[in-house]
Amino acid sequence: MSSRNKQWLLASRPTGPVEESNFRLVEQEVPALRDGELLVRVHYLSLDPYMRGRMDDAKSYAASQPLGEVMIGGTVGEVVDSRNPNWPKGELVVGMGGWQEFHVTDGKGLIKAQRGLPESVYLGAVGMPGITAWYGLFQIGKPKAGETVVVSAASGAVGSVVGQLAKLRGCRAVGIAGGPAKCAHVVNDLGFDACVDYKSEDFRQRFKEAVPDGIDVLFENVGGTVFDTSLARMNAFGRVALCGLIAGYGGQDVSLKNARSMLVNRLLVQGFIVVEHLEHWPEAMKELGAAVATGKIKYRETIAQGIEAAPRAFIGLLRGENLGKQLVKMGGD
Amino acid sequence: MSSRNKQWLLASRPTGPVEESNFRLVEQEVPALRDGELLVRVHYLSLDPYMRGRMDDAKSYAASQPLGEVMIGGTVGEVVDSRNPNWPKGELVVGMGGWQEFHVTDGKGLIKAQRGLPESVYLGAVGMPGITAWYGLFQIGKPKAGETVVVSAASGAVGSVVGQLAKLRGCRAVGIAGGPAKCAHVVNDLGFDACVDYKSEDFRQRFKEAVPDGIDVLFENVGGTVFDTSLARMNAFGRVALCGLIAGYGGQDVSLKNARSMLVNRLLVQGFIVVEHLEHWPEAMKELGAAVATGKIKYRETIAQGIEAAPRAFIGLLRGENLGKQLVKMGGD
Repeated sequence: MSSRNKQWLLASRPTGPVEESNFRLVEQEVPALRDGELLVRVHYLSLDPYMRGRMDDAKSYAASQPLGEVMIGGTVGEVVDSRNPNWPKGELVVGMGGWQEFHVTDGKGLIKAQRGLPESVYLGAVGMPGITAWYGLFQIGKPKAGETVVVSAASGAVGSVVGQLAKLRGCRAVGIAGGPAKCAHVVNDLGFDACVDYKSEDFRQRFKEAVPDGIDVLFENVGGTVFDTSLARMNAFGRVALCGLIAGYGGQDVSLKNARSMLVNRLLVQGFIVVEHLEHWPEAMKELGAAVATGKIKYRETIAQGIEAAPRAFIGLLRGENLGKQLVKMGGD
Repeated sequence: MSSRNKQWLLASRPTGPVEESNFRLVEQEVPALRDGELLVRVHYLSLDPYMRGRMDDAKSYAASQPLGEVMIGGTVGEVVDSRNPNWPKGELVVGMGGWQEFHVTDGKGLIKAQRGLPESVYLGAVGMPGITAWYGLFQIGKPKAGETVVVSAASGAVGSVVGQLAKLRGCRAVGIAGGPAKCAHVVNDLGFDACVDYKSEDFRQRFKEAVPDGIDVLFENVGGTVFDTSLARMNAFGRVALCGLIAGYGGQDVSLKNARSMLVNRLLVQGFIVVEHLEHWPEAMKELGAAVATGKIKYRETIAQGIEAAPRAFIGLLRGENLGKQLVKMGGD
């Protein structure tokens, strides 16, 4: 099989906000397969905030994204050629294919996806974002029925699942999101009990009113003043699943003023990265898949068309311009 | 039995640093016992940083210290009169007798102390401070042999036990303390591997050199920049037992600049108060008592003489003027 493969490489590390010039588009032949390898044609690429951390040279999660290599990224696609008997042609697979149209792999870390659900959900509610929500909420937050769960970036791919899972467990779900459109979506479409716009002038007051019984579980995606506002409302023995600090991805100050709440309220705070807890993925995917199939978990997607659009879409994601899961749909060949 | 009882009441809440005028000394008759009550003559009163938090009206740990009532405090003393068969005269008891020479109790929350060890250790290495060290280190920090354990306020009643317990478990123990005298004591007398003076000009650099393999377990007593300096050196999957934020007890800013480390290094941070974990006290006291009896845990005490000296000694404690456990020894009558 011979095909051209378009790829986005990391060209330079951002010094401030990410720019399109930080990436470089190249095109090359799909390499011939060796024994044990398989070729996947990517259908959807996932764009996620964690990628911003990888673009830095500084100590961050796991390894830095090397310069001159294909940008890291989750993908769903179909096996179109195979010299690996475990991964036959036609199989639908989820993996870390990166920002490119085809990827070659030995199958390590690949997950087989069930057909029947829309393919893109394996990058969203039933994929890494959904599993992130599931893991942080249930393995760290451990909410009990009747407790209040707060999630920031509530309309995003992770946050939207956090609140819906909390509702399914009988909790009060309160979101924090940027702008009235996102907040309306979170309450009206996703079924949260409340959502507060952190860009509104009376954010603190409205947030206080949204959590009249305080916060038992906080799923934190944003950091900075949003995190501080929640910390000030935590109940004794509250749990904080620390998933992201989007507010600091551009190098902004994300210092915490209310760190004292961790002591005074005897909080548990746990930072985590879901790929380090693969042992939980099958259970999480089963629960999330069933909830999506039966309509108990709803999701929204923003889909950019074609591999060329990836950097622009990623910058939009960092600016909060997307609604729900940000994807790139690859064109046909 | 008729006796005079001197007591320190909380007269006013501090607006800045604690002053002697925040307390008021009164003297009254020891009340007659009712059925079920016993009278304890206090031998030693413990002075601890947590008392500062209780003096505030603001939301803090547990309840505020009420104005006009006897200041809260741990005590060890002897039962000198009893109408409670479970607590006969002559028994040595540890409890929350408060800042006074005698206290009447129904025995609830009281602990019987073994004779044989110096009585004062039940307020220090074998009492609440030691149990705080034991609980935070073992139940939250869970250090493995070969790991690096850092403790701030290392020469204090809690910190000194943290480092010695860490050494007993085969860890590298590094202290942070204020001033060369305290640091020398921590290394030379208590056997820590290193201790860094946070008041020194090159604190950060010297601290970095003291933890060449990073920090696996942090036992935090101080907060503010000291906490930040440690956070910057945490290893992946590190654990932070958050025990106190002395730096903020006077209302100073204890905001955290390195909160991002909690996410990037996937830290577990757990605030705690040891009196909420009474189920662990017997095990902790047994281990600590044996270690003190055999000289494996050493301790230092600063003893103020007479109940009248309590406020001055407490203010000194908050200023870091004591070395080791701060006690008040009651006079004879």
